[in-house]
Amino acid sequence: MGIDQVRWGVVATGNISTSFTKDLALLDDAVVTAVASRSQDSANAFAETFGIEHRFDDYRRLIDSGTVDALYIGTPHPQHYAIARAALQAGIAVLCEKPVTLTARQAEDLVAVARETNTLFAEAMWMRTNPVVQAMFADLEKGVIGEPMEALADFGFHKPVLPARLLDPALGGGSLMDGGIYPMTFVQMALGRPDEVKAVGSLNADGIDLNVAMAWRYDSGAVAALTCGLRSQNPWTASVSGPDGSLLLPHRFHHPPYYVRSTAAGEERIDVETHGLGYHYEAAEVMRALRAGLVECPVLPHAATIEILELLDETRRQIGVRYPGDDEYLGG
Amino acid sequence: MGIDQVRWGVVATGNISTSFTKDLALLDDAVVTAVASRSQDSANAFAETFGIEHRFDDYRRLIDSGTVDALYIGTPHPQHYAIARAALQAGIAVLCEKPVTLTARQAEDLVAVARETNTLFAEAMWMRTNPVVQAMFADLEKGVIGEPMEALADFGFHKPVLPARLLDPALGGGSLMDGGIYPMTFVQMALGRPDEVKAVGSLNADGIDLNVAMAWRYDSGAVAALTCGLRSQNPWTASVSGPDGSLLLPHRFHHPPYYVRSTAAGEERIDVETHGLGYHYEAAEVMRALRAGLVECPVLPHAATIEILELLDETRRQIGVRYPGDDEYLGG
Repeated sequence: MGIDQVRWGVVATGNISTSFTKDLALLDDAVVTAVASRSQDSANAFAETFGIEHRFDDYRRLIDSGTVDALYIGTPHPQHYAIARAALQAGIAVLCEKPVTLTARQAEDLVAVARETNTLFAEAMWMRTNPVVQAMFADLEKGVIGEPMEALADFGFHKPVLPARLLDPALGGGSLMDGGIYPMTFVQMALGRPDEVKAVGSLNADGIDLNVAMAWRYDSGAVAALTCGLRSQNPWTASVSGPDGSLLLPHRFHHPPYYVRSTAAGEERIDVETHGLGYHYEAAEVMRALRAGLVECPVLPHAATIEILELLDETRRQIGVRYPGDDEYLGG
Repeated sequence: MGIDQVRWGVVATGNISTSFTKDLALLDDAVVTAVASRSQDSANAFAETFGIEHRFDDYRRLIDSGTVDALYIGTPHPQHYAIARAALQAGIAVLCEKPVTLTARQAEDLVAVARETNTLFAEAMWMRTNPVVQAMFADLEKGVIGEPMEALADFGFHKPVLPARLLDPALGGGSLMDGGIYPMTFVQMALGRPDEVKAVGSLNADGIDLNVAMAWRYDSGAVAALTCGLRSQNPWTASVSGPDGSLLLPHRFHHPPYYVRSTAAGEERIDVETHGLGYHYEAAEVMRALRAGLVECPVLPHAATIEILELLDETRRQIGVRYPGDDEYLGG
């Protein structure tokens, strides 16, 4: 009854996989049937914690096991591409953490494989499926602020000791790939694809971006300013403004507690009910698309995934950030 | 008793001169003794409203009249340079609206004339003298958020019918010279002079910038993102962030009602008492400096005025905005 209750496999056992698996328990029509880690001990421990039947020490063994309908990939960025490609080629639906690949070219290849094999592929850009974010964008669509003409988004945080992964070029570290992708996605949702992009970045000795600021311009007349960083506790908000007002997502705008609508009617705080940590919304979208026989989730569109990676490519080019896996391309 | 009660002259009779003159009435040790307009009728009407003794149809006649110790210049931007230069050469202290000139070269010339004639010269960047802004920056100096590493500032507004001046190249129109100078000043106060500047702009058919976004980078590792615009009702806030938190000036950050300090201790709204419209603070600074025999107000430093104009020059160069008066240079 795989499609009544979608059988999920989880690859990697870190924080993000833990959060995703916890949230998946909120969905009656989902079950995690398998987990894979490079360490059998980690796979076993994760499986014990969440009552998962199958545990593997290699993602390929999970893919070949025939125990799952959909795969969630929560590994560090550089491993996404090969795992997602293998799953898609095996006809297993893929929900892959963002950024799905290190380059737009790799993402294009995954989309091509998904279409060739008629297999669902989606980027785990959970912000797009968040009910508060969706309500705010529904307001924008309704025209409550008029035609959007400016967007601002900031994703900056700091910890005395940052996770080593964030500072490791071999793991796709830096503020841009982990944090910057959110303001970029917000602005792309608000204003579309920019016609001109300029970026500045502050890199550490390993060539990893610790701080990035971006200025985007649109032929429509709109502009946007974006930042991301690992050196400061920023307001971490996002807004879009038009002639009639602005819509703002407050602190931790990628999974915000409410949004703020400012128009001639005044400033209103709009509360929208949410559940769990917020990762099950993307999983529910994947299952909905899977049942509808789609290769693409309407709210997690392939074109947006590729577009954001093109913007990441260009931004990294301008600020001089390269990763060991940049050139890796498994496609035909 | 010119120095017990500083005698002010006001050049131009528009909104900003009106606001300034209203505020000056809050200061016991200031009196407006003269006003000049290109129209004698306007000068007379303004003088009647505020009880001003002398009224002139030409700023040169006011300067030659010997009736003032200090001159406030509230004309459109392109007229500032010639008027300020004439006043300084006559030994009259000058408080000139921002931007004091269209180019850094012109501002450098005015500073040189001020120093040669030992005459006080100050840019009317009222934000620098605002008590809320000053309290916020005092917190920053105290290190409550650690070393500042990121700043964000946005000055965007829209009106169905914008003042014609803002859209007139001959009057130094556009969002940058009127609005952008505020976020640029905020970020310069927070982080200093950037080591790299990138800007994008959306211009109208007359070559006037309606929307600008900027990304600044510092060798310290800091970055900043700035916007200004005339097409949308933006949040219009400014913030500076460090490893230990952020300081934020809310809506209309250039004369804010309070500021917000976010640290490990939580988020605190800090109220600071202010009076009037806020223009008398800059006038009081001028009078304090005048009595101390200075050519420069410590909180309105010449170097900052020139630096911001250099950044405006560079930003206009990048986005392609030129004014008829750009090349005007009266210096020796």
